[in-house]
Amino acid sequence: MAKHKREKLKVFALGGVGELGKNMYVVEVNERIFVIDAGLMFPENDMLGVDIVIPDITYLTENRERVQGIFLTHGHEDHIGALPYVLKQLNVPVYGTQLTLGLVRYKLEEAGFKKAKLHAVHPDENVYAGDAKLSFFHTNHSIPGSIGICIHTSHGMIVHTGDFKFDHTPVDEKAADIRKMAAVGEEGVLCLLSDSTNAQLPGLSGSEKEIGRELSDAFFGANGRIIAACVASNVHRIQQLFDAVAENDRKIAIISDHIENIVHIAKDLGYLMIPDGILLNEDEMKRLPDEQVVFLTSGSQGEPVSALAEMVRKGENLRVKSEDTVVIADNPVAGNERMVNQTIDNITRIGADVIAVQSQTHDYGHGSAEELKLMMRMMMPKYFIPVHGEFRMMKTHSELAEAVGIPKKNIYLAEKGEVVEFNEGNAQWGGKVPAGKVLVDGSGIGDVGNIVLRDRKLLSEDGILLVVVTLGRKTKKVVSGPEIISRGFVYVRESEHLLEESNRIVSEVLNDSLNQNVSEWSSLKSGMRDALSRYLYDKTRRRPMILPIIMEV
Amino acid sequence: MAKHKREKLKVFALGGVGELGKNMYVVEVNERIFVIDAGLMFPENDMLGVDIVIPDITYLTENRERVQGIFLTHGHEDHIGALPYVLKQLNVPVYGTQLTLGLVRYKLEEAGFKKAKLHAVHPDENVYAGDAKLSFFHTNHSIPGSIGICIHTSHGMIVHTGDFKFDHTPVDEKAADIRKMAAVGEEGVLCLLSDSTNAQLPGLSGSEKEIGRELSDAFFGANGRIIAACVASNVHRIQQLFDAVAENDRKIAIISDHIENIVHIAKDLGYLMIPDGILLNEDEMKRLPDEQVVFLTSGSQGEPVSALAEMVRKGENLRVKSEDTVVIADNPVAGNERMVNQTIDNITRIGADVIAVQSQTHDYGHGSAEELKLMMRMMMPKYFIPVHGEFRMMKTHSELAEAVGIPKKNIYLAEKGEVVEFNEGNAQWGGKVPAGKVLVDGSGIGDVGNIVLRDRKLLSEDGILLVVVTLGRKTKKVVSGPEIISRGFVYVRESEHLLEESNRIVSEVLNDSLNQNVSEWSSLKSGMRDALSRYLYDKTRRRPMILPIIMEV
Repeated sequence: MAKHKREKLKVFALGGVGELGKNMYVVEVNERIFVIDAGLMFPENDMLGVDIVIPDITYLTENRERVQGIFLTHGHEDHIGALPYVLKQLNVPVYGTQLTLGLVRYKLEEAGFKKAKLHAVHPDENVYAGDAKLSFFHTNHSIPGSIGICIHTSHGMIVHTGDFKFDHTPVDEKAADIRKMAAVGEEGVLCLLSDSTNAQLPGLSGSEKEIGRELSDAFFGANGRIIAACVASNVHRIQQLFDAVAENDRKIAIISDHIENIVHIAKDLGYLMIPDGILLNEDEMKRLPDEQVVFLTSGSQGEPVSALAEMVRKGENLRVKSEDTVVIADNPVAGNERMVNQTIDNITRIGADVIAVQSQTHDYGHGSAEELKLMMRMMMPKYFIPVHGEFRMMKTHSELAEAVGIPKKNIYLAEKGEVVEFNEGNAQWGGKVPAGKVLVDGSGIGDVGNIVLRDRKLLSEDGILLVVVTLGRKTKKVVSGPEIISRGFVYVRESEHLLEESNRIVSEVLNDSLNQNVSEWSSLKSGMRDALSRYLYDKTRRRPMILPIIMEV
Repeated sequence: MAKHKREKLKVFALGGVGELGKNMYVVEVNERIFVIDAGLMFPENDMLGVDIVIPDITYLTENRERVQGIFLTHGHEDHIGALPYVLKQLNVPVYGTQLTLGLVRYKLEEAGFKKAKLHAVHPDENVYAGDAKLSFFHTNHSIPGSIGICIHTSHGMIVHTGDFKFDHTPVDEKAADIRKMAAVGEEGVLCLLSDSTNAQLPGLSGSEKEIGRELSDAFFGANGRIIAACVASNVHRIQQLFDAVAENDRKIAIISDHIENIVHIAKDLGYLMIPDGILLNEDEMKRLPDEQVVFLTSGSQGEPVSALAEMVRKGENLRVKSEDTVVIADNPVAGNERMVNQTIDNITRIGADVIAVQSQTHDYGHGSAEELKLMMRMMMPKYFIPVHGEFRMMKTHSELAEAVGIPKKNIYLAEKGEVVEFNEGNAQWGGKVPAGKVLVDGSGIGDVGNIVLRDRKLLSEDGILLVVVTLGRKTKKVVSGPEIISRGFVYVRESEHLLEESNRIVSEVLNDSLNQNVSEWSSLKSGMRDALSRYLYDKTRRRPMILPIIMEV
């Protein structure tokens, strides 16, 4: 690696700070751009009709010739989900571990994108891109193949931890490579970017293995069939479910295409060990007595469209029975609690037992305060930037950083697009680059903006009322209509009087105006809209969107 | 109380079981109907535009001459919120404690309803209605003036606990009247209906006073102004806030009309003691140094429209400053966590300290498992009906009932409208009465049904696209249009091509049909709709509502 006379670095986030989701970080070393992660975020409640949200990558497309590649920390949607959209605009090399790339490949195939340049890396190899050296370290998280990323510079490394916890007794992979992290710290870290998700939780996050014991207990206690619901990407959890199946002399069938795909990817790449002969298909399962049956399904987050929801609603041979035990094998993501509870209620109504593993121990993929401190103590960076979290989590993380001895002036609490610049190893704020959210709706990317969302919100609250009228071009008289049509406003069959009266009011306003020789469309429209709006609010206390349409013949 | 030869009783819920909210229970004693509570529920996410949800009271209006009155357990919205709607249809006497009726009066005034027959009861007096005797017992809950209700029958009492916990060190009222409860049990309880909300929490709920210490600590640690946000109806919490103000030599101003009203009602009725001279108005507050200032605001649930949200967004002299301490003085209600977290994030961004009291201790208004067992042990009812909770909570509550010795066959896990009938003191299932949810939107009650909601959902997801065309009545030719207008679908300015092309497709379909002498409107409309729908889905992967409108001249 060449030692530059005046090395200039920039670090900033295009997503993932001040929010949970759409992680994307940029490190620039002497004009060369290294991107870390390209995640999506699921829409907020007020983003009506929006499918997903991705980062604004204007900065990257405007500087496309400088981008060296995208380096992925792990295979979760909030880190890889924007790739199909990003690569279509910017087909740069993508680096990640085998499992991460397996999931990326599956994702890109689904999106019909075939030209990706994917480079698998092992946590212990180095990558040279541009003239920079990158190295990695193995971490523990709720998906295997998670890594931290080090970008080497002449003033020390820029380190991004990825999502991490310390699990000293992990399930199906090595424990986090603490010795390598310590060595990284020893070599010298200029700036650490670290996962803030659980900064506000004291103590330690606990081991994934604790959940294994619970799953095994739940399986042991079940008399009839077991239906286990789990998030597809949590390969560790799926491993423990397979282990519990084998231990309890049961067989398992997967009732979810998505889980089945991920299980096959993880198995083929050696991240998942399926005990011999336990994996059957649905048909084979029918021949077994109930007490040997386990179904693995999606729907643990209470999603209304999922294999589990289907089994609760109806299903034929697969309907949940009162003798079944339903094991919900992971925590509800924040915001999903209500849906999960409704699912549990519906299963309870059928009479089946529900064991929600999350209710008993905490098992997080993200380290709590003491783990974050341990990471900082090993890295002992000169500068610290809390990332991956909502603002209060980053704030608390910055307080933890102070507590372990990083000077307050060296901690940069940066929001999206806010650049931290390093000159000769000394940091300062460096202005802003464009950053924000791009809404994806159907195949449209970024074309759903505030106006469209505002209209959807209006429409969703009180519906729409159309007034259509045809005027004679010369006579300036009404030749047809007004017709009044509504959707989502009132139940039309019970509101005939209201709509007839609306018609009368509109006709009156219209004829009055025309008689006074007002024929400018905008005046006619606003006259009708105002009169109707007043009348309808008075009668119903609702404010539908009112859309007058004038045709001319 | 006359002893009937063959006394016949019915007990059922019109709301409040299998759900959280809109509590309404019915006890019938020899054809006389006693109603307990008349609450509302806030709409689910998929009830677009709906303001509140109330119980279906068809059964009561159809049997109006038999209804003796509505007996209120306490003044929370989920117990009194439907009264303005219910009383308009059924103006029967309403019974409740002073504070409950104070809140009811305020509510009815807001709704412009003036003819209510309100009867204040003291927990230690008896009420005779019809020829039945009713008695009450004082309980602890997150609002003062909460009571349990006993309806005396010749085979023992039917007891409804209301919402309750046991607080041995309550803040501003007596501890729950345990001795009276024990005496009720001693006299004989035929059937107990008890609050299931926290049946799934082990142990005890803890005392309100624990929160007082936390509030006081938070106030003591603050250097600048304090902004305390609290739910208006939690009078105990407000009392503790006033106490903390006095203890810390500060003054307080209320920045919320709703809280101000409730504070005045509670103070006038003796439920709230305001230390002398601490309550100032906003203007007087301006003259004080920051370290003596406390503002009491709404918005502790993260509501986007609230005094606190206003102070975070802009406000003039009242904007949150970086030296302020914001104390969020209660727990987020299930489903509000995300909004509360966003509020905390926004305050943290300003630089102010946020102390969320709920993050430290649990303080619930509802008893945990051990408290529920204590209630059952004191009452030792012959029959048990778990009420006030989602299904899994009721289920767990019924398991607790079995654990304390109530025989399983005497526990009725009844859903809305399912009648438990008692003949000579022996219970059995007794069929179903109409029960369900009535949606209130604006001044419309029950006129928003599935069709309107389905349309609102469609409109909210991909908007609407209108095709308006005028045909000549005789010529059967297009004389004006087609015009295409969309709302909430795409950003029109960026989608000119899409809309032009849509226009071309519609014109083609229309002219083809007309040329083939198809002039039936429904065929023309479905032809246009199908062609457009295919084209738009292909281009955008969206499915707007498509509404063809044909005018004739």
